[in-house]
Amino acid sequence: MSRFWSKTVQQLTPYVPGEQPKLTQLIKLNTNESPYGPSPKALAAIQEANSDLLRLYPDPNSDALKQCIARNYQLTANQVFVGNGSDEVLAHVFLGLLKHDQPILFPDITYSFYPVYCKLYDIAYQTVPLNHEFAIDIADYLKALDGKGNGGIIFPNPNAPTGRALPLADIRALLEKNTDSVVVVDEAYVDFGTESASTLINQYPNLLVSHTLSKSRALAGLRVGYAMGHPDLIEGLERVKNSFNSYPIDRLAMAGAIAAIDDGAHLASISAAVIKSREALVSDLNALGFQTIPSQANFIFTHHPQHEAATLAQALRERHIIVRHFKQARIDQYLRITIGTDEQCAALVKALKEILA
Amino acid sequence: MSRFWSKTVQQLTPYVPGEQPKLTQLIKLNTNESPYGPSPKALAAIQEANSDLLRLYPDPNSDALKQCIARNYQLTANQVFVGNGSDEVLAHVFLGLLKHDQPILFPDITYSFYPVYCKLYDIAYQTVPLNHEFAIDIADYLKALDGKGNGGIIFPNPNAPTGRALPLADIRALLEKNTDSVVVVDEAYVDFGTESASTLINQYPNLLVSHTLSKSRALAGLRVGYAMGHPDLIEGLERVKNSFNSYPIDRLAMAGAIAAIDDGAHLASISAAVIKSREALVSDLNALGFQTIPSQANFIFTHHPQHEAATLAQALRERHIIVRHFKQARIDQYLRITIGTDEQCAALVKALKEILA
Repeated sequence: MSRFWSKTVQQLTPYVPGEQPKLTQLIKLNTNESPYGPSPKALAAIQEANSDLLRLYPDPNSDALKQCIARNYQLTANQVFVGNGSDEVLAHVFLGLLKHDQPILFPDITYSFYPVYCKLYDIAYQTVPLNHEFAIDIADYLKALDGKGNGGIIFPNPNAPTGRALPLADIRALLEKNTDSVVVVDEAYVDFGTESASTLINQYPNLLVSHTLSKSRALAGLRVGYAMGHPDLIEGLERVKNSFNSYPIDRLAMAGAIAAIDDGAHLASISAAVIKSREALVSDLNALGFQTIPSQANFIFTHHPQHEAATLAQALRERHIIVRHFKQARIDQYLRITIGTDEQCAALVKALKEILA
Repeated sequence: MSRFWSKTVQQLTPYVPGEQPKLTQLIKLNTNESPYGPSPKALAAIQEANSDLLRLYPDPNSDALKQCIARNYQLTANQVFVGNGSDEVLAHVFLGLLKHDQPILFPDITYSFYPVYCKLYDIAYQTVPLNHEFAIDIADYLKALDGKGNGGIIFPNPNAPTGRALPLADIRALLEKNTDSVVVVDEAYVDFGTESASTLINQYPNLLVSHTLSKSRALAGLRVGYAMGHPDLIEGLERVKNSFNSYPIDRLAMAGAIAAIDDGAHLASISAAVIKSREALVSDLNALGFQTIPSQANFIFTHHPQHEAATLAQALRERHIIVRHFKQARIDQYLRITIGTDEQCAALVKALKEILA
């Protein structure tokens, strides 16, 4: 604590990201990165942009990237906002669209950055418990602040760290009833088997859908995320962004992101591989006695009735395999395991067999 | 205006960056970019980092980059903060270190993003007029809120858009007297002939010095900036950053920035070239009747007693040369002109000769 810190800093509880170990030779299944590389077209586009032109600022409005996203989601460029990773996009969403007099709502078990943003921007929130199956129940949101309204609703779909997805019909039902505040569907993991709510954007002016290039596009190292919604919502986000940092997307990230988003074939190919490996891994783990929540993500959330999750995580670490364990009520007996290559999944299953033996 | 916008968004007045025209074949002297390319070592490092490893998140703490900066400024890594351009760094500085009960102080003529940050974060401020020579007078800051203290002081050195620099002795004098709030010296343009205050960091726990790679390092397109100061100040900034975005520096920017900062020879070479061109340009313009403020930056601030600045800017634009004109009290008769290559400077002088003829 320093006397030079603002009151805001003094009361912060910063987010703790998953460990990024500097050792290689680890099987890293803890931060939901892609086990496959990005589109070769993205690498080629970056190589082309890597020139003396780096002396010039990028386009502050990232128009070419917005047009690319609009083209790929049947939207217009003024329905698209881009940022330095979806974390930055979400930060601007919290300050620009979710800070109101009423508390906002999000699940009790969800992306743990949400309450951090709330502290940063002094936003009141109320968590809505997942049901007994660790699923979001839309009815719980509609009655959470019954008669009092809410400042906004945000949840990932599929949810993290559970991996469980909500059908589009449920999201539509929520939007039909919740018309006075923004509903943010954080689709970081949507490409692994969930239907995107982006198709509802033209019908619901209060729907915002956020995506990242860090998971299915295999570009966590490039830092690009985006949000799609009504032009009025986007304009609100642009006002925040232009009061914070004029040029969040650098020239290399811009070039790589455009090529990656336009390469639908690569996305389809590596997503299909992850889904196939996920189903095989779930089957293998359940054969070992694990109980796994049905996942539509590039990770699974699993527990073993006879083994402490923290102990299992530690035993895996000793075998150079890193998974994520959250010391949090309701989920402290679960492990979140990123889907690796088939070889990595096999190594994980082999290690668990030894540990459980 | 949308009913979904927060009150914060509703009252914002976003910053307007200098135009980034999409046409090539323009002589672009409006946003203080380097006329020369970045270090070839930076381009090589980026090329090496452009690989399948982009599927992995970057180091959230950017340790290697902090160590590189520390090494180059005789500091330790915990005295360094890094961000997605110095604009992002400054945004975190405003929220984390300059938001207090007392108003902060900055010059009336300065980087126009400062009041924008204040609006974003609801920070009270008071501007301190430059003296009649458009210079910062430290005495004015010491008496500005006499007896009442201040929430912090920030100014660029050299100042923008004037280009005029303050000697290190003046900054030291300010720090000796102003010990109860943070003093931020924004050294975006320091490498073009000003002594850096970074050498004072170990003596003054309330001094923060910010730098950018967008000017002298010729990497505006890469988005990297940093701040240097006491570990307590840095820790406050890290808390804000880790409540906003875990990974602001992507893998390519990290690699390029380290190589660029380590290439002191390239920095010295292109800065010397800019300084030489600046002196020649000032001489040529003054021969045409311009009156130019002594500049220690990679731009000059100049006016012509017989010609409207806005008219000159428009006439230059018609000749495909873009300079920056601010419609602001005290400086609306000035043009801010970035130092280009000698060829670009010659084209500017030739065009102005025609316009004035």
